[in-house]
Amino acid sequence: MVRVAVAGASGYMGAELLRLLCVHPNITLTGVTSDRLAGEALTKAYPHLRGLSELRFHDLDAEWLASVADVVFLALPHMESQKAVPILRRHGRRAIDLSADYRLRDPNDYVTWYKAPHIDLSGLGEAVYGLAELHRKAIAQAALVATPGCYPAGAILATAPLFRAGLARLDGVVIDGKSGVTGAGAQGRRIDPMYLYTEANENVQAYGMASHRHTPEIEQELGALAGAPLRVAFTPHLVPLNRGLFTTASVPVTSAVTTTRLLDVYREFYAGEPFVRVLDEGERPTTRAVVGSNYCDVTVVADPRTNRAVCVSAIDNLGKGGAANGIQNLNVMLGWGERTGLEAPPVYP
Amino acid sequence: MVRVAVAGASGYMGAELLRLLCVHPNITLTGVTSDRLAGEALTKAYPHLRGLSELRFHDLDAEWLASVADVVFLALPHMESQKAVPILRRHGRRAIDLSADYRLRDPNDYVTWYKAPHIDLSGLGEAVYGLAELHRKAIAQAALVATPGCYPAGAILATAPLFRAGLARLDGVVIDGKSGVTGAGAQGRRIDPMYLYTEANENVQAYGMASHRHTPEIEQELGALAGAPLRVAFTPHLVPLNRGLFTTASVPVTSAVTTTRLLDVYREFYAGEPFVRVLDEGERPTTRAVVGSNYCDVTVVADPRTNRAVCVSAIDNLGKGGAANGIQNLNVMLGWGERTGLEAPPVYP
Amino acid sequence: MVRVAVAGASGYMGAELLRLLCVHPNITLTGVTSDRLAGEALTKAYPHLRGLSELRFHDLDAEWLASVADVVFLALPHMESQKAVPILRRHGRRAIDLSADYRLRDPNDYVTWYKAPHIDLSGLGEAVYGLAELHRKAIAQAALVATPGCYPAGAILATAPLFRAGLARLDGVVIDGKSGVTGAGAQGRRIDPMYLYTEANENVQAYGMASHRHTPEIEQELGALAGAPLRVAFTPHLVPLNRGLFTTASVPVTSAVTTTRLLDVYREFYAGEPFVRVLDEGERPTTRAVVGSNYCDVTVVADPRTNRAVCVSAIDNLGKGGAANGIQNLNVMLGWGERTGLEAPPVYP
Amino acid sequence: MVRVAVAGASGYMGAELLRLLCVHPNITLTGVTSDRLAGEALTKAYPHLRGLSELRFHDLDAEWLASVADVVFLALPHMESQKAVPILRRHGRRAIDLSADYRLRDPNDYVTWYKAPHIDLSGLGEAVYGLAELHRKAIAQAALVATPGCYPAGAILATAPLFRAGLARLDGVVIDGKSGVTGAGAQGRRIDPMYLYTEANENVQAYGMASHRHTPEIEQELGALAGAPLRVAFTPHLVPLNRGLFTTASVPVTSAVTTTRLLDVYREFYAGEPFVRVLDEGERPTTRAVVGSNYCDVTVVADPRTNRAVCVSAIDNLGKGGAANGIQNLNVMLGWGERTGLEAPPVYP
Repeated sequence: MVRVAVAGASGYMGAELLRLLCVHPNITLTGVTSDRLAGEALTKAYPHLRGLSELRFHDLDAEWLASVADVVFLALPHMESQKAVPILRRHGRRAIDLSADYRLRDPNDYVTWYKAPHIDLSGLGEAVYGLAELHRKAIAQAALVATPGCYPAGAILATAPLFRAGLARLDGVVIDGKSGVTGAGAQGRRIDPMYLYTEANENVQAYGMASHRHTPEIEQELGALAGAPLRVAFTPHLVPLNRGLFTTASVPVTSAVTTTRLLDVYREFYAGEPFVRVLDEGERPTTRAVVGSNYCDVTVVADPRTNRAVCVSAIDNLGKGGAANGIQNLNVMLGWGERTGLEAPPVYP
Repeated sequence: MVRVAVAGASGYMGAELLRLLCVHPNITLTGVTSDRLAGEALTKAYPHLRGLSELRFHDLDAEWLASVADVVFLALPHMESQKAVPILRRHGRRAIDLSADYRLRDPNDYVTWYKAPHIDLSGLGEAVYGLAELHRKAIAQAALVATPGCYPAGAILATAPLFRAGLARLDGVVIDGKSGVTGAGAQGRRIDPMYLYTEANENVQAYGMASHRHTPEIEQELGALAGAPLRVAFTPHLVPLNRGLFTTASVPVTSAVTTTRLLDVYREFYAGEPFVRVLDEGERPTTRAVVGSNYCDVTVVADPRTNRAVCVSAIDNLGKGGAANGIQNLNVMLGWGERTGLEAPPVYP
Repeated sequence: MVRVAVAGASGYMGAELLRLLCVHPNITLTGVTSDRLAGEALTKAYPHLRGLSELRFHDLDAEWLASVADVVFLALPHMESQKAVPILRRHGRRAIDLSADYRLRDPNDYVTWYKAPHIDLSGLGEAVYGLAELHRKAIAQAALVATPGCYPAGAILATAPLFRAGLARLDGVVIDGKSGVTGAGAQGRRIDPMYLYTEANENVQAYGMASHRHTPEIEQELGALAGAPLRVAFTPHLVPLNRGLFTTASVPVTSAVTTTRLLDVYREFYAGEPFVRVLDEGERPTTRAVVGSNYCDVTVVADPRTNRAVCVSAIDNLGKGGAANGIQNLNVMLGWGERTGLEAPPVYP
Repeated sequence: MVRVAVAGASGYMGAELLRLLCVHPNITLTGVTSDRLAGEALTKAYPHLRGLSELRFHDLDAEWLASVADVVFLALPHMESQKAVPILRRHGRRAIDLSADYRLRDPNDYVTWYKAPHIDLSGLGEAVYGLAELHRKAIAQAALVATPGCYPAGAILATAPLFRAGLARLDGVVIDGKSGVTGAGAQGRRIDPMYLYTEANENVQAYGMASHRHTPEIEQELGALAGAPLRVAFTPHLVPLNRGLFTTASVPVTSAVTTTRLLDVYREFYAGEPFVRVLDEGERPTTRAVVGSNYCDVTVVADPRTNRAVCVSAIDNLGKGGAANGIQNLNVMLGWGERTGLEAPPVYP
């Protein structure tokens, strides 16, 4: 059994990792950290796990993590992972980071978007962007994987085939994301009035307009697929659901193309993928159909009136948008079947 | 007291008209129709109105409506209003239509988008598009007003100042609407599985991709403001809330422009408007802040990276997106203060 | 115009008072206090009120309140009202308290349930329990009115006719309350993890089992109606809605009685009441039908199998359960029509 | 591999069976029936199962079911199971019925509560009530198991230890159930206005007052535990959540008893149970902590003021309240570990 630990397990992303790792057949969960909850029983913070774990939260100590685990998931705020990862790597431990710290290849992007220089350039150099649909081979060789942000996961999977196939024009890409509350800033179970039930319930709003930090991550990956730099106009939204992230991308196309043809391109691109389901013409993705799982449901519709394609995807922001995708990365890194520990169907309704 | 009736009062839009008209100080509610509920007490269908009305539903009979009311609101499915309106007009009654039947000026658009020729071209000729922010003077003179669809109301108010000011480029406009369930097809309290609690709750989805019938309405009004035809890529979404409609429009701008400058344009455009609130820089519209009212909260943010503006608005789909806006039209038509009967603040939370 | 102020306006109960007072035709809102928000514009904290008020929050200063208002609503935490009220009364101001501080007649009950002696016994002596359905005449004479807690309002109105009529046995009364999140502890927009969207959404739980402080208030009023002391087993629950409070009371009856007979007793008891609606046999109260209003919908069903009656009521916890009921008290105290400022129908859906 | 089929798979209870059976390691899903959906691909009705099953719905034909399966789950409306079960039994197939048809031992109860005589008295004679916590040994021998209704599952598990221990008085038991929408009548994805999003959202109501058909089932099982007949006053409620059922039972106690003592009784009663978690003093069950699983979280609090105990439980109505409990029964019947196929932790949040 491979020993696995979770650093930063007090937030929703950490909680989802625990839910899935608890029953992953190839690993043993050997440590969880949270500075805030250090010393407390895991099941005190997570009553749903009563009876399923004897662990207690340890404080965030990378040396300790390296001593108890072979692989460490980091569900920490950005700027925190880059402090812990070098220590883990020095001890030869593998790391799967769910923060933003190792997602951007250009160190300058951290200065621009996160207002601070990166302090682990060596780690940044070896890190692989953790989306198996794009980088499966590199992930299989990697010791450090940066799992995508939830919005980028949805946006990239919704549009990647268009960019790879050269069907997308690179100017005028507009992406609109709608995230449930566990994704949109409340990952740390942070106590902010915006996330109160009475404020988020029966409410929809945009935030981070023209400035959300997931933007460069989307541009990096789509640009690499297209073979040229591009910019996207990205707007995230908070919608009233616990889990779920829906992406609507409007992509100008290079030539007249039918929905049928576009779907063929998508099916070819995602052929054999265990977690991407390309829908049939006339079917519509819904977050309802993927919640609790690592699936991404996608479709695309041609809009000849505007010479654009409407590309949509539905994921669970804690699933393909984070924790479950992180476990897919673990499976790829360790050469296990990619569905190991991720077999449970989505929870409906 | 002006006598007012509501045709098609069995749906949510009709219900909202009744809620507001019940307490409008200048009118008497003299008739409600519903073929399905004919003969039933109004308060049987609407228990919230217990004690507030003695009316019973009458079947949909335009002659009868003309006999009991001076002004008739029509909250009917499209293609139904154009049957009733000519009869009402022949009797000299004024009509405020909440269906799509009189919104599009070009009769060909009905063939294209609604798959049927219009049967009341005379009415279509005299109808005024019922958005006071654009057509106040014409509404004041009108005998037949076509109240905008909920998505167009949100989309037009979010972007009108940009088009009027010549700041918008006309290609590449992308509009994304998110509507609560009373707006997105369930107006008639239709019983469709998609609108079951267990299906709509904790779920987000796009629908009508590249084909929603509100698209030409948006193009007509924005084109008129711009002085040239344009096309928009519009995608509607169903989000889990009873009321509320949030619009995010990405509009390419003709020249570099700051958020501050854009907000000035908006403030000038909406100066004196009783129901449009332009937010200050840094503030964000939310549907929460307008629910139950006729308000539209708007803001705009410049995105110099993409040479676009992000334009957002929040309305209540049953408010500014329908019933309350219809009552504002009534007030304009009859020369009353525009806030008459619409004074109640939004219901928070 | 009567000058009215609201002390403790930063919570949901205060917000609801403001929403209603804004458009009350007989009063002018002259002051709002919040220590936390002192100096801030009212519309900064309450974006839904943009354009509707120029007020700024003042700190909680009873002398200042007495100088700006003829009547003061207090929406303060318990133990705070009893500090401010004596000052207001010394200046001859009338007070309508929404806290628990003046609801219980026996000062010892404060020691028992609130763990502290009452510091304004004089005020306690003159205070009237603010439920017009039971104490209309006394309220009309009162200078200090204690508006009931939301659970007691629902529980008392659901069962009062049975106790007054001598149909209820006094042992074995069981009351179960289900409250929306604005009522169940989040009044102050307090930031507590239990009230996070992600915790309260899709969740139901009991709390305060066998120990909730609203229990003695229910017992006091039902005991007074019955003419003998009684004890009730009361359990409150948090359910996922913004507003709404549903009460289910199981009351043992003294003799065999039919539903029809019970409903007659209820109709007689509530005859002429402007805000209590006794439903017809077979109809069911729902919180949906009263939200946003001061209504209380009630019904009762005989259960001959158990010799009990099932008494249910639906209110808006911020409406009849607090702010709107407080305004009904204002109207009674000042001799105005009881529906003044409370005419707006419930908001459906 | 044991061959398993699901009859009546078009409702939510059937859907949950499919979700769980899909990944049960010891069985093969060989058939699903639905008269309404006959011929349609399973994944058309259940998009969340895309890629996970090749099955198509067959019409409801018991002979066919007997030919394809060793064990059949029946998720049919009541009165339908008793038509199919005799045929299955004649072929020697085992059946796990999720309808009400085999839950009540006294055939007269069907006449009283379901208004029709039972047509399979032989089956009724051999059926075992499928709650392993009470009837594990009998289930292990049974060929026909009647899985409890969701309300009875919650009510019985909340109170069983009190009745078995002789601590409960048998008169004056009051039980209040709150169910999510998948449980409260919408099992069949029936299209009824009451279950529309816009009607059920932000709404709470009681229904079936003094007449719900789950009442005799609760009385039968608690009476058997107590060794004497008893009657309970039971009121079900519809609350706005997809899944989850919370039960609050007020039980008069025979003698003064502390919470600590009561919890000891509960812990002893449930010692070794794999799916019942007795909470520690001060902890509170929530539906949030059990959703998606077969767990039942319970606690009890003494109320010395009223000589009663407050007994509460939280289950997933589709979990311990139906499908997952049915699979626990399958495991018991076939001698497998009881957690087989039920290992996945609750889904939080």
